[in-house]
Amino acid sequence: MSRLKLYLAPGTCALAVHIALHEAGVDHEVVKLNFAAGEQRSPEYLAINPKGRVPALVTPEGVLTETPALLLYVAQSFPQAGLAPLDSPFALARLQEFNSYLSSTVHINHAHRPRATRWADEPEAIAGMQRKVAQNMTENFRYIEQVWLHQGPWVLGDHYSVADGYLYTVGEWLAGDSVDIQQFPRVVAHRERLLQRPAVQRALATAKA
Amino acid sequence: MSRLKLYLAPGTCALAVHIALHEAGVDHEVVKLNFAAGEQRSPEYLAINPKGRVPALVTPEGVLTETPALLLYVAQSFPQAGLAPLDSPFALARLQEFNSYLSSTVHINHAHRPRATRWADEPEAIAGMQRKVAQNMTENFRYIEQVWLHQGPWVLGDHYSVADGYLYTVGEWLAGDSVDIQQFPRVVAHRERLLQRPAVQRALATAKA
Repeated sequence: MSRLKLYLAPGTCALAVHIALHEAGVDHEVVKLNFAAGEQRSPEYLAINPKGRVPALVTPEGVLTETPALLLYVAQSFPQAGLAPLDSPFALARLQEFNSYLSSTVHINHAHRPRATRWADEPEAIAGMQRKVAQNMTENFRYIEQVWLHQGPWVLGDHYSVADGYLYTVGEWLAGDSVDIQQFPRVVAHRERLLQRPAVQRALATAKA
Repeated sequence: MSRLKLYLAPGTCALAVHIALHEAGVDHEVVKLNFAAGEQRSPEYLAINPKGRVPALVTPEGVLTETPALLLYVAQSFPQAGLAPLDSPFALARLQEFNSYLSSTVHINHAHRPRATRWADEPEAIAGMQRKVAQNMTENFRYIEQVWLHQGPWVLGDHYSVADGYLYTVGEWLAGDSVDIQQFPRVVAHRERLLQRPAVQRALATAKA
């Protein structure tokens, strides 16, 4: 296929997709948007993703958005990389269950700190939302620690999957959300395992470049 | 396989999964939780879904949660029903993209009215969030109307999929969110098509029973 092109911005959930592309060993191009300069709202980018967010992945068949969808796409397009349990509807649904939880619960709870203006206009309302972020993120990671990482070493157990890079990505936000990650030893150990993977190192190097 | 058991509550996104089960023509059991009585927080239910939410689907291999994951599971487990483009990674990712948008953007924006206490404690903050719900839901449905329903008759074009029942479900909330659905004629026409399907009629009858 022609080269995939990933639109990302440092510090966002697009990192999860970038990790997956490196894990799949697929040649790809990266376009880094400058959120501080509002590049995600430029007419050029809105023509690619009218939602004005990242990630967006340009594929030979068209543009795809939404992290859980992109992770499934990478796993299915490069099955030899073994990034998802594609042969079992139940196991694949478990993977989607975890990724959906990250996107619709954990990411959302985090977003109430830096993106609170999405949900209210008044400064007092925004401050009220921001005050509750640490509590919500702590509850979410306690659930992940107890329910999903009790077996390990990976989110799905014995086999690494796209869910692991996604969990690493969301975990990057805990410090900024004033959550002490040390209360979640399995999450800490999981992050250390991720940092040893060349795919994760490469994706992080791009974000920092 | 042994009989699937779906935990749902009227007025929630579990309706999308119930529609999918009927579309797949699969025998299943329904357990209706009384949210007003707090049954989703009972020890019995928390043992099934520690998140205390619906839907939850009990399968022969274990419990699954999160609507996009359950919809994928139903589509993959009963492929003869043709509820998802399972043979194309891109087309399946498009389906997941839409479902992920509904769950992590539209459902969330709606939830800031009835479930605002998830994201702040102060009454002024809660009121501030609730004031912005109609604006956000209007923007979301404008995007759906223009970007996803411009071709039709279904979300993915020519073929009905689990995304259609999910869109119907989320559209049920617009009136309560003070959004006039008549400004979205394609959404209105889509809902009328859905209401003609026996699967939708059966799932709605259960919700109202």
